[in-house]
Amino acid sequence: MKNKSGALLAGLMLALFMMSAAHAGEGMWPLSNLPVATLQRRFGFTPSAQWIRHVQLASVRLAEGCSGSFVSPHGLVLSNHHCAVGCLEGLSRPGHNLMARYFYAATRQEELKCPAMEVEQLVTERNVTAAVNRATRGKSGAAYAQALRTVSSRLEAACIAGDAHQWRCQVVHLYHGGQDWLYKYRRYQDVRLVFVPSQDTSFFGGYPDNFNYPRYDYDLSLLRVYVHGKPAHTPEYFPLSASGPRAGELVFTSGNPGATERDDTIAQLKTLRYPVFPQLLQFLAHEQGLLEAFSAENAHNAEVAGGTLFFVDNAIKSIDGQLAALNDEQQFARKERQERTLRAKVAASARLRREYGGAWRAVAAAERRGAAMFMPYFMIVRHGGFDARLFDMAFQIVLGAHERTLPDAQRISAYRAANLPLLEQQLFSPAPVHPHYDALMLGASLTMMRDLMGSDAPICVTLFETDSPAQVAAQAVGGTKLADVALRKALWSGGEKAVAASGDPMIALARQMLPYYLKLYKTYEDQVTAPLEANTAKIARLRFALYGTSVYPDATFTERLSYGRVEGWLREGKPVPPFTTVAGLYKHARNYDPLKLSPAWLAAKDRLNPATPMNFVSSNDIVGGNSGSPVIDRDGRLVGLIFDGNPPSLGGAFWYDGKNNRAVAVDSAIILAALEHVYHAHALVQELMSGR
Amino acid sequence: MKNKSGALLAGLMLALFMMSAAHAGEGMWPLSNLPVATLQRRFGFTPSAQWIRHVQLASVRLAEGCSGSFVSPHGLVLSNHHCAVGCLEGLSRPGHNLMARYFYAATRQEELKCPAMEVEQLVTERNVTAAVNRATRGKSGAAYAQALRTVSSRLEAACIAGDAHQWRCQVVHLYHGGQDWLYKYRRYQDVRLVFVPSQDTSFFGGYPDNFNYPRYDYDLSLLRVYVHGKPAHTPEYFPLSASGPRAGELVFTSGNPGATERDDTIAQLKTLRYPVFPQLLQFLAHEQGLLEAFSAENAHNAEVAGGTLFFVDNAIKSIDGQLAALNDEQQFARKERQERTLRAKVAASARLRREYGGAWRAVAAAERRGAAMFMPYFMIVRHGGFDARLFDMAFQIVLGAHERTLPDAQRISAYRAANLPLLEQQLFSPAPVHPHYDALMLGASLTMMRDLMGSDAPICVTLFETDSPAQVAAQAVGGTKLADVALRKALWSGGEKAVAASGDPMIALARQMLPYYLKLYKTYEDQVTAPLEANTAKIARLRFALYGTSVYPDATFTERLSYGRVEGWLREGKPVPPFTTVAGLYKHARNYDPLKLSPAWLAAKDRLNPATPMNFVSSNDIVGGNSGSPVIDRDGRLVGLIFDGNPPSLGGAFWYDGKNNRAVAVDSAIILAALEHVYHAHALVQELMSGR
Repeated sequence: MKNKSGALLAGLMLALFMMSAAHAGEGMWPLSNLPVATLQRRFGFTPSAQWIRHVQLASVRLAEGCSGSFVSPHGLVLSNHHCAVGCLEGLSRPGHNLMARYFYAATRQEELKCPAMEVEQLVTERNVTAAVNRATRGKSGAAYAQALRTVSSRLEAACIAGDAHQWRCQVVHLYHGGQDWLYKYRRYQDVRLVFVPSQDTSFFGGYPDNFNYPRYDYDLSLLRVYVHGKPAHTPEYFPLSASGPRAGELVFTSGNPGATERDDTIAQLKTLRYPVFPQLLQFLAHEQGLLEAFSAENAHNAEVAGGTLFFVDNAIKSIDGQLAALNDEQQFARKERQERTLRAKVAASARLRREYGGAWRAVAAAERRGAAMFMPYFMIVRHGGFDARLFDMAFQIVLGAHERTLPDAQRISAYRAANLPLLEQQLFSPAPVHPHYDALMLGASLTMMRDLMGSDAPICVTLFETDSPAQVAAQAVGGTKLADVALRKALWSGGEKAVAASGDPMIALARQMLPYYLKLYKTYEDQVTAPLEANTAKIARLRFALYGTSVYPDATFTERLSYGRVEGWLREGKPVPPFTTVAGLYKHARNYDPLKLSPAWLAAKDRLNPATPMNFVSSNDIVGGNSGSPVIDRDGRLVGLIFDGNPPSLGGAFWYDGKNNRAVAVDSAIILAALEHVYHAHALVQELMSGR
Repeated sequence: MKNKSGALLAGLMLALFMMSAAHAGEGMWPLSNLPVATLQRRFGFTPSAQWIRHVQLASVRLAEGCSGSFVSPHGLVLSNHHCAVGCLEGLSRPGHNLMARYFYAATRQEELKCPAMEVEQLVTERNVTAAVNRATRGKSGAAYAQALRTVSSRLEAACIAGDAHQWRCQVVHLYHGGQDWLYKYRRYQDVRLVFVPSQDTSFFGGYPDNFNYPRYDYDLSLLRVYVHGKPAHTPEYFPLSASGPRAGELVFTSGNPGATERDDTIAQLKTLRYPVFPQLLQFLAHEQGLLEAFSAENAHNAEVAGGTLFFVDNAIKSIDGQLAALNDEQQFARKERQERTLRAKVAASARLRREYGGAWRAVAAAERRGAAMFMPYFMIVRHGGFDARLFDMAFQIVLGAHERTLPDAQRISAYRAANLPLLEQQLFSPAPVHPHYDALMLGASLTMMRDLMGSDAPICVTLFETDSPAQVAAQAVGGTKLADVALRKALWSGGEKAVAASGDPMIALARQMLPYYLKLYKTYEDQVTAPLEANTAKIARLRFALYGTSVYPDATFTERLSYGRVEGWLREGKPVPPFTTVAGLYKHARNYDPLKLSPAWLAAKDRLNPATPMNFVSSNDIVGGNSGSPVIDRDGRLVGLIFDGNPPSLGGAFWYDGKNNRAVAVDSAIILAALEHVYHAHALVQELMSGR
């Protein structure tokens, strides 16, 4: 399970691809509203205010789409290997591939600075529902969206108080706007690599084992955040348990589940079922084939395409599982009954009818418009038709120049002042560019756009008047100088004038594309996003009025706690045990990828206790974005590290199935044992054990 | 539109991929049951027995999945370029690519023999319903399937009367077994290439224009069948009209529509909607990406992969359209109402309940089992996991050796005596083998099988015990000698003993795979195919009892006639005219593929009348398999050549939409004009015009 960007698809992923594992203790609960009564009743455990505050401050978010936690007072962060792929790719050079080998910085001096990575610690949260409601009251459509942006922008700016490099503030809409919160994050942009295993160890079993169980993965990374060139002081952290959890034990996961669709109306789920998921699968499978053939050409290509291929593989499996869930007639019928019940309540009351009566029909109408626009929207606004890093850079520069001429509240979200530091960090990343690869990807995606939208679509007529999509890509990639960070900086700071004057062919391509993007972005915003937001918020307010905080809100890639037990499940009637062991790892291994053990693990076989647990499953309710989440016990000790979900967990995006959904974690016992006996990372073990 | 195999997918295509265009004159009518009353009432035309017999004998079937017609008394056959791709690829050599250039044999001596092609002429048809019913009465499940095979095999053997090289006999189940017919075909295996344009002309506009309109394609091939080394004498043929059809004119198409699902139950359509179509799309899109990247490497690769890529592109567009149709809620609801009406009729009568009551439930149960088995069935029985020509050869040899030890009626259909000549012709085809390509395709498909079925699936444990899927593929392709036709012949004639003794690694791989294939084939046959056949036949008999031959049977890749008018349709409220012209072709052209004109057409611009019609649409009800069908007027003159359907036609697989579905044809006027003025094929024009 990952929620990590290969390239341009990052935004899309956050919006659409989140997968899920649910559990015998349903719910992703905000720390401001934990189900304390249930915890007390079922487990005899009541989290204290201090316990909750400690969990909040020891947990972190990785801006690109993951979770993590502090595991020492010296800024040491534990997350997944797959959450550090961007850093590893950025630090890799020909002949020095950080995905292919393990890395361990025995001293602070050896720690490597990630080219573009941001770790965020939630420090305060404030309920701003009243302010948001005041600003949006009585508005709908574009006016509603604009009012929401304006008030959010104002609240965020006041919260940052001029220091966007230290703070990130975000207005978060829980219950689809039933509650609005202002979250303030401490922002760490100096993130350094301390330890990672090789990818064959972190992702042992590869694509076929992904979203499966039993698993034997050591999917972790250790990073350190620095402030003013020194390791950050992080007194709130989770000490590691040397023994891991016991079967049946109550455990918590603290992290940032990305997105769930559990409050969606039936009309929304139907759009996902068709056309969204089948068409995305088709797009991704095409990209998968392209990347596989490109990788088969030679080892260099395989290295260059590896990260994106990993991401695409993962997305395909995740969507496959979600599509299967949406085609489960029984579960879908249950969902339909729930909606009928709620709508019947509304229909029975004149007051409710007046306030909420039109909401479902309005959602359905917006979904129909969205489905009809899906292909151009995906190709143009989501960059499905412009799938190359060099284009992304050019487009960020071109769109950024345009957006920064607007008042903050009128800008597209990524270009608002609060979000510019993250965008600039990515845009100016010194990670190497691969023109041969970008030419293939851009050519293939432009071609796909032309094929699926038709040669007669206005954007195709403009772009391909004299040259084919592949020629357009080859010329833009061949002629661009954007691989040069200094040029990107100059164009960025030069703004609209610099962009207009640039003769760079990739900038020219982005300039040609811009009006189509802006027009479609606006149309979609007005006809789909805004009415959807307004009307799903209406339904959410109704639910909130009926159920209050006795239920949990849909996931929003913000801090949530879930609880569960370490326990297996029944697969086709047979029990799947909760733990795997080191012995199982060596038995599952073969002499070829992705079942080949790394030299370090082969050599360590006799030093490891075969009974040491490797991975375990628990019934915690998690989804993508929870990758890297700590699994902690009631005493606040870290007993595991979330990295995946089992196959039935993929339906967790839409509903909860406590019997079968399981989260998959690396056991803390093997985390420590392997650092010691496989990697001889004594200083690191020392730091993790003692906090010194 | 095509129904032409790239490689192993041929069988699958015939079963699943057929697309469709329906029309204002619904129905694909067997010649034995034309809607004469309707034709008389609506058009004042009554086809005479002589007219019908003439149409039957002048029409032909291309065994690989197309239609065609005789267009001179000297065995000259007109079909589509895309129906001759197998021949063109088989005849191509490095530096001599018959897809990239046009070919014209000015004399008979220059005509090139296709390595593997079969043209079939339907000579007699006999109603054998009584015999089939006697043999299958009271049977169900496996016993039913076995009885059906036994009686079919007996009838076919008697019909062939020992000369399988001259005759092909087939028991055809119309109305899903409501009527059974024995069709006898004259078989022509010596087929020679007379004329083809280059592919950029036949498929002008390429993938984006495919299944679209307006079109400007010259999608034709001219072939000649020979008997004993001399052109066959074919006194029944269609003379070409030099002017083509008029707008609004009544026209007929005669051909072999492959398969429709119009009589399917809702349960069957739902299985297509999920999982079948989304999973096939995913498989095909992956293959598309793979082939595109492979083709991008160099011109040789592009040539090698071109045919399969063309086929895959086409299949994707076709399934995309069918999936969209199945997700049309209104049309689907109409279909559900029809089924409810029929089931209510049954429920209302004790007699009907007894006989037909359980059929829908039995179909639904078989569909559920089929859907659960779909992935392994597709990977193993349909060879989705073994997607390479060298493997196909090995498997035909290995399975053929096994099957030929069984009595004819117990064999898998392709290995029954009546079908061996076709199989042998393909197996012994001297068409070149491309090991580099086969290794990529086999490696990728084995990997996909492992990824989708899991490393723990028994077949994967067996095949990948010591080597990865890619290694298994590389070793089998690297070590095999099956490119040698003589070796294939020796192994084929050596039977089980030769196969068991062979040290060839591809034969060894096929031997390893065989038990999984046989077991799954049998399980699927018993649990899915047989109960489906028995129960859909039951429902069809009910319909047949209620409606008789007043309705037409689902398509069966056998001779059918459809009628319609030359007419456009409304797209988003705007009229699409029925004809395109030579002027439109030159206007649509660009300086890059697939919109680049061939040198021959560029040079001929001034010699062609810009007003000459290129393509036209008509409301005839056709589907895949109709490719190459003649469009004839009431006087039996050939006025067009079917090659595609418009976008709304893709729902024609499931239902009829006379307002929008259109068939797309090459106008006979441009067929003759271009042969004369672009290709200077004077002798050919002479033959077509005069029959001499």
